This record gives sequence, structure tokens and C-alpha cells, in this order.
Amino acid sequence: MTALLAPARLAAARADFPGMVTRDGAPWHYLDTGATAQKPQAVIDATVRAMGADYATVHRGVYARSAEMTLAYEAARRRVAGFIGGREDELVFTRGATEAINLVAQSWGALNLGPGDRILLSLLEHHSNIVPWQLLGQRTGVAIDVCPLTADGRIDLDAAERMLTPAHRLVSFAHVSNVLGSVLDVPRAVALAHGVGAKLLLDGCQAVPRLPVDVAALGCDFYVFSSHKLYGPTGIGALWARAEILADMPPWQGGGAMIDRVSFAGTTWAPAPTRFEAGTPAIVEAIGLAAAIDYVEGFGMPALQAHEAHLARTLRGELQRLNAVTLFGPEDGLGVVSFALDGVHPHDLGTILDEENVAIRAGHHCAQPLMEHLGVPATARASFGLYNDEGDIAALLRGIERTRRIFA
Amino acid sequence: MTALLAPARLAAARADFPGMVTRDGAPWHYLDTGATAQKPQAVIDATVRAMGADYATVHRGVYARSAEMTLAYEAARRRVAGFIGGREDELVFTRGATEAINLVAQSWGALNLGPGDRILLSLLEHHSNIVPWQLLGQRTGVAIDVCPLTADGRIDLDAAERMLTPAHRLVSFAHVSNVLGSVLDVPRAVALAHGVGAKLLLDGCQAVPRLPVDVAALGCDFYVFSSHKLYGPTGIGALWARAEILADMPPWQGGGAMIDRVSFAGTTWAPAPTRFEAGTPAIVEAIGLAAAIDYVEGFGMPALQAHEAHLARTLRGELQRLNAVTLFGPEDGLGVVSFALDGVHPHDLGTILDEENVAIRAGHHCAQPLMEHLGVPATARASFGLYNDEGDIAALLRGIERTRRIFA
Repeated sequence: MTALLAPARLAAARADFPGMVTRDGAPWHYLDTGATAQKPQAVIDATVRAMGADYATVHRGVYARSAEMTLAYEAARRRVAGFIGGREDELVFTRGATEAINLVAQSWGALNLGPGDRILLSLLEHHSNIVPWQLLGQRTGVAIDVCPLTADGRIDLDAAERMLTPAHRLVSFAHVSNVLGSVLDVPRAVALAHGVGAKLLLDGCQAVPRLPVDVAALGCDFYVFSSHKLYGPTGIGALWARAEILADMPPWQGGGAMIDRVSFAGTTWAPAPTRFEAGTPAIVEAIGLAAAIDYVEGFGMPALQAHEAHLARTLRGELQRLNAVTLFGPEDGLGVVSFALDGVHPHDLGTILDEENVAIRAGHHCAQPLMEHLGVPATARASFGLYNDEGDIAALLRGIERTRRIFA
Repeated sequence: MTALLAPARLAAARADFPGMVTRDGAPWHYLDTGATAQKPQAVIDATVRAMGADYATVHRGVYARSAEMTLAYEAARRRVAGFIGGREDELVFTRGATEAINLVAQSWGALNLGPGDRILLSLLEHHSNIVPWQLLGQRTGVAIDVCPLTADGRIDLDAAERMLTPAHRLVSFAHVSNVLGSVLDVPRAVALAHGVGAKLLLDGCQAVPRLPVDVAALGCDFYVFSSHKLYGPTGIGALWARAEILADMPPWQGGGAMIDRVSFAGTTWAPAPTRFEAGTPAIVEAIGLAAAIDYVEGFGMPALQAHEAHLARTLRGELQRLNAVTLFGPEDGLGVVSFALDGVHPHDLGTILDEENVAIRAGHHCAQPLMEHLGVPATARASFGLYNDEGDIAALLRGIERTRRIFA
């Protein structure tokens, strides 16, 4: 199903975002939500309260405001876990998805993956789902295999099925591609990974803002995402891991809060998830992330999925009609459209579009192996958020037409 | 020199902090700045702007607002580095001091410290300056020695001199103790460490809000601190390391931004400090931290040092006159006063004080080895910020008197 949010709802939503206007007060056609999402006023307000009248540390104070802040922080954990269908004791706050993957690599991976073991990634992964495993490979000797893509830019699960062996201990895939919008067939990926005894990690950065996620129903083992792409604060993200996996993972970073008892003779650890949260946490940011989740759930994730699917399909159709554009990725890519305009470098396109108050991203999108596969140094990428409408697409198309005239 | 900020300045400063009132609008006697500092309106305002009208990602966008955000983020780095006398290319943004120490341990430490090598810590260190080294010891075999304290609760540098050997590759000490307020004699610590060829790391969490820091003049090798204790946002902190040390440190976390070129055949790294900042950074928090530094520098760090010294000395004097209090730490402890009230558990004291709108911390202060040394399970701790005045001390003393009557 593809359908925009109702016009009145959409107009109201747009007004919720103070960042969606230019310095001159004109509408900003922000089409870079795949890089980072704008923040609704509700998230900003929650941040202001948490930094002001409510501010105190967590887990330590004997006074009421600290106890209240602790409740708010743990309520945020419950909210975030519930949003993706997980339990709160399975949810670790991290700085972002990148740190979450590094945590899995350096804790679970360093303990469980060594010479002779293999990890299966794919050709479309973000650098954050490549480099942590390369660093782990240097440290432990675990080997990396790369699953190819189908002709239309999905992770080729038929190929994965042929490649997977009992030596594979982990499969780590993007749930939704940040370049192509390709949505992974998660049930099949789970079945393939578990069929050889491997765990499945899903990079959910581009998925959680765009579709309902239920880790229990999906059956994956690790799920990671960043707050700032989900309309929440920077500086925080989450790792969800199945309880029995998390319970066996050794600490990664040491410090306050993650300990049971510290002694120079030997230190013991707190249970998960606290064991993985060394130091004073990103208290304000956790509360802001919970507010962002309240905000998006007010729309309903199925409605946002339909909205983003509609925008992506509409833009693809319009770009195809130009006869001067190469489109990358599958027809049903969700919320993200990568393309190249014949004879124009994506950076030049981006710069000209900026003059029209249209913001897209031009570059390798932290996916250089995919760029190499596509045979381009960069793509232009329009990525949508819940605040975008067909007016933003029209503005983008006008800017592309102007660019074509300039370069004609 | 000990002297309070001028009364008018102090009253104005207090009004800058929306967190310094209770829910009922009464003054809050917040004496837990050692755990975390309240945030001035200027920091909240900078956060709101960065999350709203100014919001965009950094380092990637081809549109103007992203370029401006990148400038603001890098200006924040310059501001933070300059605040402690360092160069911007020596300043890595981390989640906090805890992560900064873990970064040094797992990057510099894992490369340089192995069996036969030794680290010298002290008995008063925060868990964040103990546990990362214990984890490193488990991984690489490096051994840890513990420098004792003087009778009045300073790191005993005479003992350190006797203990240090050429096998010591690192000395890691608190600049100011979070429990005792003891200020390290940094020049002597530098001379001792460098005298045996060891590097010196300083945990500056309690120092940077309370005294001028100039890493170049001090001569240390690593310096770490957290934003949230410096009146800035949660979720960010900093590692400063001498350029030539940072240049040789391998990456710790992998992901976007910290790379030069990613390929499955082999990945190359960005130069420092970018090499250590994987993923989308805590953009808003960096800008908020810079605003916090602007704010404290508006007072002048020497004035804040005198203010905090005066408050701590005044409180120690008043507590001594009660004849029912054990005081820990040196007479000239800076901004932090730990004590025990005879016959009253610190938690009970803290709870009763809370009823009087006085917030102190009661506990082990993430320094269990020090508690064991002091022979107590916990202390009561009053720690000051720039917003505190003698009225806060008077309120604390009234609460202590009431507690004594209850427990009499």
C-alpha cells in the first residue's frame, strides 16, 4: 500500500518541525532524512525540560529529583525496547548504531569469532556495518564474505543461501539500504542464518523511521539503530540483543555503573544491559529519543510506511519520465531514491538544488563498496521523512530541470 | 586565594540555571555538581537552536546548512581544545570521560602495553580510571600498581617516586579527586612519569569546572573530561592527546567518517582526530559544550577556582565545629567535601536533607577502593558549582542539625 498522510495531518506535521524552514522563513525542501532527520518540537521540548527543571543524574542520587530522573531514563529504555518489540532488559543505550555494531563486534565477536569462523555481510552495507568487522578480523582472524546483490539492488538471498556454511557464525545485513531503499526479506534471512547456526544482526537505521519493527516476530538476534535518524536527539542509539546472548557477552567499556563491585584484586560486573553502559549515560538524549518514538507512533508506523513508499514511488516515476536519469535500486525501495543525472556530477546537482532550497545528499553515502559495484563515484540521493510531501518532489524536479538547462 | 563571586554576579548566575529551583519554585540547594552540573539557559538555548533552525548533519551535505553545521561542529572542537590549552587536531569528541579512557586503553594501550609492562594508578581513582585498565590487563597482560595516599588524602607522590620503574609505561591519575577534592601536583606527576619514560593521563572531570587547565603548560600526555560536569550537555566529552601520540594510535571503533577509503579488500583510515569519531557525531551536544565553555569563561576560571575553594573551606570549617563529623580529604580540597556524621548512615542523611531541598550525594562515588581504604561503605559528599553560595551551606548545616536531632 502506498498512500500519503492526509493533507491536513501532513501540514500539521510539517509545522511541528522548526528546522523545516529556511533562514528567510521559506519552506525548506529537506530530502536528506536518510542522513539525519529533523526534530519535532515535542523532542526539543522534552530535551529542554530534561536539561532544565527536571535535570539530575541517574542511578546514584538519594534525592527525589535524581530518583525521578532514573525512572524517566528507565522508562525511556522501556519505551525504546517496546517500540521494536523487545524487552527492556535486552536494550542497551549506545551513542548510535555505529557504536552498537562495534559493541557487538568487540564484545560478542571477540569472544565468539576466531580463525576459521566467517561473517557474511553484503555489498550494500554502510561502512558502519563493514569496518567494525574488518577491525575484528584484524584482531581475531575471523574472515568476511560478501553477499552480492540482485540486478535491481537487493541483497541476493539466493546467493546467500549458496554461500552460507557452518563456519558462518554471523550474518549482518541492512534492514533497509541507506542508498537504494531496498527492504530485506528478513524472515528468509533469519531462516538462512539460523539454518547454518549463525546469528543475524540487522542494521535498522533506515528501517525504524519507515516501517513497523518487531524483533520478536522477526526472529533476528541483534538489532541496532540511531536516534538521530528517527527524529530524535544526536548522541544516542540502541542495541537490542536477545536476552540469552546479551547475558553471555563480556563487558566492553569499563567505568562507573557497569560494575557490581570494584577492587584492585578483581572487579565483578553488573548484569545486562547495565554492564554495557559505562559512565554517566546520555540521560537527556534517552528521554528525547523516547519523545521521538511517542511522536512517530502518533502517526502509526504503517501509515508512515505507506507515506514513504508513496513518495519514493512517485519520485521514481517522475525521474523515469525525464529520460536523462539513471535510477538505482528496486522499484519498491522505501523512502530512499538514488539516481544520476546524465552528464552532471551529483555534487553539482546538489549545489544547484541548494539554491532552490532543496537539500539532497550527493556522495558515496558511506557505502563505497556499493558505489564501486554500481560503477559510479557517487550518487544523488533524495530520502524522505514524514514531513515531506509532493511539493518537495515538485521542487526537486524543478531544480533538476534547471540543472539540465545549465548543463545543456 | 579563596573568595566568593560577587553577590550580584552570583545571584545573576543562579538565575541562569532553570534547574536550580524546586517543583514549588523554592531555591534548590543543589550540592551534587560533582555528579553532574546543572545547565545554564545559554547551553539550553544553544541546544534548541542546534536541534531546530540550525539542524543538519555534518561533513557530508552539499547544501549550505550542512556546511554551516560542519563549521559549527569544528568550531566547537576548536573551542574545547582551546579551553584546555590544546590544539584542535589533538581533540577527540567522545561520549564522556569514561569513553575517552576506554579509547586510550583499547587503542593506545592495546598497541603499546603487554606482558611485563605496568600501569600506575592511585587508590583514589574513580572506577572509570580503574576498570578500563583492568579490562586491558585481562586482554594484554599489562599489570596494574596502586599508588597509596598521604594521611590527608592526596595521591602520595613520594610513594609514586619509589614505585615507578622503567616497566611503567603509563601513569593515570585524577587531576582533582571526585571524593576528596584533592588537587594533584601535576608538574611533579609529569616529572615522575616522564622520568621513567611513562606517559601521564589526567582524569580532569572534577578539574575543568573548577580551575584553569593548560595541557601544554602542564606537560601531560592525555587529558579527559566530561561535558555534563562542566555545565554542558550529557552524551559528550573529550579526549585530548599530544599530537604525535594520537597520530600513532590505531582506530578503535569502525564506521562512517573515520575512514579514508573502504573496500572489502582493505580499508584505510582518516587522520586523527577524525579517525576516532566513527559514525554521526553528537553534533548538538558538541555545540552545547562549546556554549558551556563560553559561559564558564565569562566568569574566568581563576574566579571560579577561588569561589569553589572558598565554599569548600567554609563548609569544612563549619562541619569541624559540629564535633560530630568525620571529614575526609585535605584541608585545601577543591569544591568537594566528603564527610560522615557520627551514628548516621550517609543515605539517611541524604534522605532527610532532601526534605529540606538540599541535594547531596551519599554512596561510594564510584570509588570503592577508596571507600575500603577509608574504612567506610559510603560517605556523604557535598560538591559545589558556580551557582552555590553560603546560603546553600547554611541550608546543609540546618539539615544536618535536624538529622542529629532525629537520630539523637
